[in-house]
Amino acid sequence: MPCLYLIPTPIAENAAHTIPPYVAEIVRELDTFIVERAKTARHFVKSMEPVRPIQEMIFEEIEPGGHSTGKICEAARTVFREAIAAGKSVGLLSEAGCPGIADPGAGLVAMAHQDGVRVVPLVGPSSLLLAIMASGMNGQSFTFHGYLSPKRLELARDLRRLEQTARQNKQTQLFIETPYRSQMVLETALESLSPDTRFAVAQDISGAGELIRSLPISMWKKGQIPSLDKLPAVFLIG
Amino acid sequence: MPCLYLIPTPIAENAAHTIPPYVAEIVRELDTFIVERAKTARHFVKSMEPVRPIQEMIFEEIEPGGHSTGKICEAARTVFREAIAAGKSVGLLSEAGCPGIADPGAGLVAMAHQDGVRVVPLVGPSSLLLAIMASGMNGQSFTFHGYLSPKRLELARDLRRLEQTARQNKQTQLFIETPYRSQMVLETALESLSPDTRFAVAQDISGAGELIRSLPISMWKKGQIPSLDKLPAVFLIG
Repeated sequence: MPCLYLIPTPIAENAAHTIPPYVAEIVRELDTFIVERAKTARHFVKSMEPVRPIQEMIFEEIEPGGHSTGKICEAARTVFREAIAAGKSVGLLSEAGCPGIADPGAGLVAMAHQDGVRVVPLVGPSSLLLAIMASGMNGQSFTFHGYLSPKRLELARDLRRLEQTARQNKQTQLFIETPYRSQMVLETALESLSPDTRFAVAQDISGAGELIRSLPISMWKKGQIPSLDKLPAVFLIG
Repeated sequence: MPCLYLIPTPIAENAAHTIPPYVAEIVRELDTFIVERAKTARHFVKSMEPVRPIQEMIFEEIEPGGHSTGKICEAARTVFREAIAAGKSVGLLSEAGCPGIADPGAGLVAMAHQDGVRVVPLVGPSSLLLAIMASGMNGQSFTFHGYLSPKRLELARDLRRLEQTARQNKQTQLFIETPYRSQMVLETALESLSPDTRFAVAQDISGAGELIRSLPISMWKKGQIPSLDKLPAVFLIG
């Protein structure tokens, strides 16, 4: 029976070793992919040494142009349904990491369930999960919030709200930020949070520049502040 | 520099293929492990074909007897600090899946950060993450709650509270259950939740009995109810 494979991709440069070989074996046999971005997806699939020439494969973007409407475009729906009807399995690929987590892929997975198509999640790197593991914060209860407000004043308010929730519910609070705003988030957190609140940053996990620091705010202020400007980051309060 | 490796283990029978080879390479070189349960940890390390005889290695349990106090026992602290002081890296192993997530390992990770020891999370299977991916529910915002109440009436109340939070915050709500209570959770959810609420069950992910079903409650009621009694399960509302 054809199925929808959820295919993880590396989350750092030169981190192909984080993809288990059984994932490569599955990718090699597929020829239809629904993807976040066609260019990077083609590059990844090519690196898995597929059995067919890459030119004969279909790479259909979930939302061409990356408009983040959260909707699956009509072309992607059609490609998915035609492949399944023809008895062929389909691969779902995120830009980096696990499809369906902090990316627009979930809509296609929901559609597969509605259509009665088997969904098979494959094991691979997730910056969120690795960040929770490595933070030493509570992994029995946590919330992922996506992005917080991009505006400094509202961000400070968001951070204090998360700090309060973390304390009241004994629950780790997790969010992400783009490269060019990560430094501002770190500075705002150090200014806004209580000295005894635990705060963590994770960047380039599994890569050459892996940075994972998890300390109370008071300890952060005593040490040198790392430069976060070049890569996306995961932040944790707990 | 010695470090603390966070080592994932398979989450299903005969699922060694979900552990990337670089993890095996790291495990092979270690001889000191802090673990959730010594017996299963020894079995896993042996399967990685370590360079030293298993009898010469240290497997120290975080909480001997599995008392779930959330505290690292004195013996485990000592083993960790002595190994690091001797320049040797230490591995942290959970009973299944990723250490620090829904297990007692987080305390040791926090201790490593306090001691200034580098923490290195390795890539592997996590039933929680794979369940979110495969649910098709919102992966941009989610909360993991650990276990809900074991009592049926309180469980029904918890489920309705999660349903309300999922709806109000557009946030996927995630929890786990032990094998012998999973069937009761499924039945209580089908009785307690609204027909249009999306409900998912994931069991034995990456194993031979992989079960992943994600549907509105109304659709669940129309189909055959699966038997969940033999394995732990992840449940999602979204």
